[in-house]
Amino acid sequence: MNRSKDAAAERSKETGADFLQLDTAEAPPGGLTDWLTGRLREAVADGRLPAGSRLPASRVLAAELGVSRGVVTDAYGRLAEAGQLAGRGRGGTVVVALAATAAPAPATPAVSAAVPLAADPPARPAPVLFRADPDPEVFDHLRGTPARIDLTPGVPDLAAFPRAAWLRAERAVLDGLAGADLGYGDVRGAPALRQAVAHWLARNRGVRADPDEVLVVAGTAQALALLGRALGRVGITEVAVEDPGSLGARQHLAHWLAATPPVPVDGEGIRVDALRATGAPAVLLTPAHQYPTGVVLGGERRRELLRWAADGGLVVEDDYDAEHRYDRAPVPALRAELPDRVCYAGSISKLLAPALRTGWLLVPAPLRAAVLDAKRFADLGNPVLPQLVLARLMESGELDRHLRLLRRSHRRRRDAMIAAIRSHLPTATVHGAAAGLHLMLTLPEELGCSDTELATAALARGVKVQPLSWHARLPYPPGLVLGYAAVPPGAITEGVAVLGELVRRAGFSPPRRSGAPAGGRRRTR
Amino acid sequence: MNRSKDAAAERSKETGADFLQLDTAEAPPGGLTDWLTGRLREAVADGRLPAGSRLPASRVLAAELGVSRGVVTDAYGRLAEAGQLAGRGRGGTVVVALAATAAPAPATPAVSAAVPLAADPPARPAPVLFRADPDPEVFDHLRGTPARIDLTPGVPDLAAFPRAAWLRAERAVLDGLAGADLGYGDVRGAPALRQAVAHWLARNRGVRADPDEVLVVAGTAQALALLGRALGRVGITEVAVEDPGSLGARQHLAHWLAATPPVPVDGEGIRVDALRATGAPAVLLTPAHQYPTGVVLGGERRRELLRWAADGGLVVEDDYDAEHRYDRAPVPALRAELPDRVCYAGSISKLLAPALRTGWLLVPAPLRAAVLDAKRFADLGNPVLPQLVLARLMESGELDRHLRLLRRSHRRRRDAMIAAIRSHLPTATVHGAAAGLHLMLTLPEELGCSDTELATAALARGVKVQPLSWHARLPYPPGLVLGYAAVPPGAITEGVAVLGELVRRAGFSPPRRSGAPAGGRRRTR
Repeated sequence: MNRSKDAAAERSKETGADFLQLDTAEAPPGGLTDWLTGRLREAVADGRLPAGSRLPASRVLAAELGVSRGVVTDAYGRLAEAGQLAGRGRGGTVVVALAATAAPAPATPAVSAAVPLAADPPARPAPVLFRADPDPEVFDHLRGTPARIDLTPGVPDLAAFPRAAWLRAERAVLDGLAGADLGYGDVRGAPALRQAVAHWLARNRGVRADPDEVLVVAGTAQALALLGRALGRVGITEVAVEDPGSLGARQHLAHWLAATPPVPVDGEGIRVDALRATGAPAVLLTPAHQYPTGVVLGGERRRELLRWAADGGLVVEDDYDAEHRYDRAPVPALRAELPDRVCYAGSISKLLAPALRTGWLLVPAPLRAAVLDAKRFADLGNPVLPQLVLARLMESGELDRHLRLLRRSHRRRRDAMIAAIRSHLPTATVHGAAAGLHLMLTLPEELGCSDTELATAALARGVKVQPLSWHARLPYPPGLVLGYAAVPPGAITEGVAVLGELVRRAGFSPPRRSGAPAGGRRRTR
Repeated sequence: MNRSKDAAAERSKETGADFLQLDTAEAPPGGLTDWLTGRLREAVADGRLPAGSRLPASRVLAAELGVSRGVVTDAYGRLAEAGQLAGRGRGGTVVVALAATAAPAPATPAVSAAVPLAADPPARPAPVLFRADPDPEVFDHLRGTPARIDLTPGVPDLAAFPRAAWLRAERAVLDGLAGADLGYGDVRGAPALRQAVAHWLARNRGVRADPDEVLVVAGTAQALALLGRALGRVGITEVAVEDPGSLGARQHLAHWLAATPPVPVDGEGIRVDALRATGAPAVLLTPAHQYPTGVVLGGERRRELLRWAADGGLVVEDDYDAEHRYDRAPVPALRAELPDRVCYAGSISKLLAPALRTGWLLVPAPLRAAVLDAKRFADLGNPVLPQLVLARLMESGELDRHLRLLRRSHRRRRDAMIAAIRSHLPTATVHGAAAGLHLMLTLPEELGCSDTELATAALARGVKVQPLSWHARLPYPPGLVLGYAAVPPGAITEGVAVLGELVRRAGFSPPRRSGAPAGGRRRTR
């Protein structure tokens, strides 16, 4: 005998709807239309049905409630007469402005006066944005601040995103998908993408990897988060970073680890002697194209670094834009030479788009279980559809084609920026032009203003840039980091002209030879 | 004057390719073809170019290397003669099996003998899989273990995934997308999805939320991870959980927090007196449809819980399948009644597919900054394309349509499962049939075997189920958690018949009246 406790409930008539949790049991006998009208009116009044929201079709709602369709159409009709609903033909029945509201608000919910998020990115005044010591929300604020010309670095030519190829690949993926592929998947990532990444790394970066070693992650940001967790488990709580070096990467590591000591970078890359001197057990590096200086790790320095690693040091290699070289083949990844001592992080952000939040992480065998555990308890794995689409683009050669197209576009934009700097910023030194998506400019120390002040003044003129001092904690000349990849040449020229004018203008031009500069103009780091 | 350090590099001829990092400077004078052939042969031999991988078109590679096309076609030709490459017409030039390999391996890289991941999900023997105290990898192992009939719970009818609607929405999204939308986006999620979620919650769950309060997350797993981090920052390191209650959710909380004390669940839901007795400052709940028992939190119990919360307790509401009710309108979310004391987590996993890894989290205002910070340093935000597609499906009514279709399909499957249980497992008690995607069965204590043993025996017969004891730490009868939503009725009936046979068969059927059951048959928790 089956002692099902829910037998009664099972057999009960369906008398409810998800929509507004309507339950006809509440209605007085014979008063269904009044009841429904009242419930709908309340929902419009208290904001659960904001202006612009669409009501279920009367047929559908009637079926869900187990009432005749006339009950629903009558209730809708009464509210339409009261001006709260409007029929929109095939658009269905839509909530219009509340009687109390002046003008119809287009689909903006008139809901609770909730306290906004503490870290909500409002259009803050620019002087707060460009502080010498930026807080963790700084990139949110920077992104949320509108500007006519956006020369901040970090993104490729996004207008070139291969929409048609993406959609074709998505169609093929959906056509070929088994139902089970849409369930909870492999925490390490879809097998097809892990294989495509292994092929890509072998072909383009000299890295041999078994697909089982590849962990698909939500971009380099997540790679650093997972490493932060995993390194903590093996007792590593300190990771040295290049200086200058990416502020964003440093913030991510600092969130998860106890310390991120800076190691100076010179014309050959990171100073390995200084790295040894920190005593840090691990280091985060951008060897193929150092961020932001653009230096390629020199041959002797590379050998010195590999000796440091062979002596027990752990390298975290952020191979963030190695594929974007304009002069020659990129150097192979460090991972290719010493896989047992190198964690390798790559991503699609600079090849296709950061908004895809997709990257990969390879770690030495002893770290694998801890990194996989960190990924599991972060999010159970990346979403599967974009992974499968990306795998198709990588294996079909579409991504290689896109990269070739990007290189041509980026090279033109880089050339436009260099030409504009030559004309408008003749005292600037350009670094890192042979590769990547950005240039680093250093400016003479006698400029007489901090680079954060220069960035602030530029933003006031509609040009958004990053001050170099954001990326440095050790003494370094003032400067700017300028992205060119996502901006058409005309806007690049215009933006650089504004920067040039600001440098020349009163308040910025008079060189100060010695002593402290005027108040507030001291460059801080 | 521009002091560009890279002037020489800039002007240098392009003589390299990403592909295998080929650099023509290495070639001896007059020996380009020999050099290229040798480099390609090495790459095939050492696995960088595995069988099945495709080479660049000769025209493309020649352009990248700055050599004549004949050099590339000659090199390809020589390797084709040696049997290492094959022309595939429009399919391009493809690597075929190594000479040393017997048969062509289809696109499986013959690369390094890397140590497999420690947590690699192999087809482990079933007895290890169904241990009484499962480890964090247990769901990976369970997923990775093949079975003819998969009755594990947690997924909706995945074959019904609205592929055509998804693809249409994706096309519309790609058509309307600005380039900047593909850059680094709002950490909180795409504004369009936050608005769609706010509308959905208002319409379907009685929850009023400003879109600015909604945080888009990678499913409930990530919601728990972010809360774990954020609660730690406000000094909460202990979150009580329902018992029985989801093993997966408990594992996630336990990864991030110091303690997860169990609180018993009875026919009215969580025992609030027992919750008070734990002294825990917070509790994770599934009030709309308790997991796994299916109990709806009773009215008086609900009021008692809200009093506990008003006294300073914090509720984490996992509203995991509230939309799937078959009998009446779902109860409104607790969040609707006490937004200042309830963190609310919802997800698309049970409405569309877990593989989308998309959910939402609402928290009381004082926790918002910490939760946002946790999301930022987890992954900088969800991928944007699936968010925008989902927003369209939610706002257009497609998701409501899909939910109605799912309810019909799920109801048929539930009915098939209940009928099969009635026939084949007459001693079982069915719980939670009025809603959701699964049933909970309890079995008589005198069954004479543990439910993990039953699950093990079932898997050996090709039927995958979860033992109820996985989800309980306090004393509770043995049982099974059976998912029906993703399985066609015929397979459900067949699977339940196997379970019935196992319960009846020797070793499982003889009721034991007293004393310890035979060795190894004691039910453990």
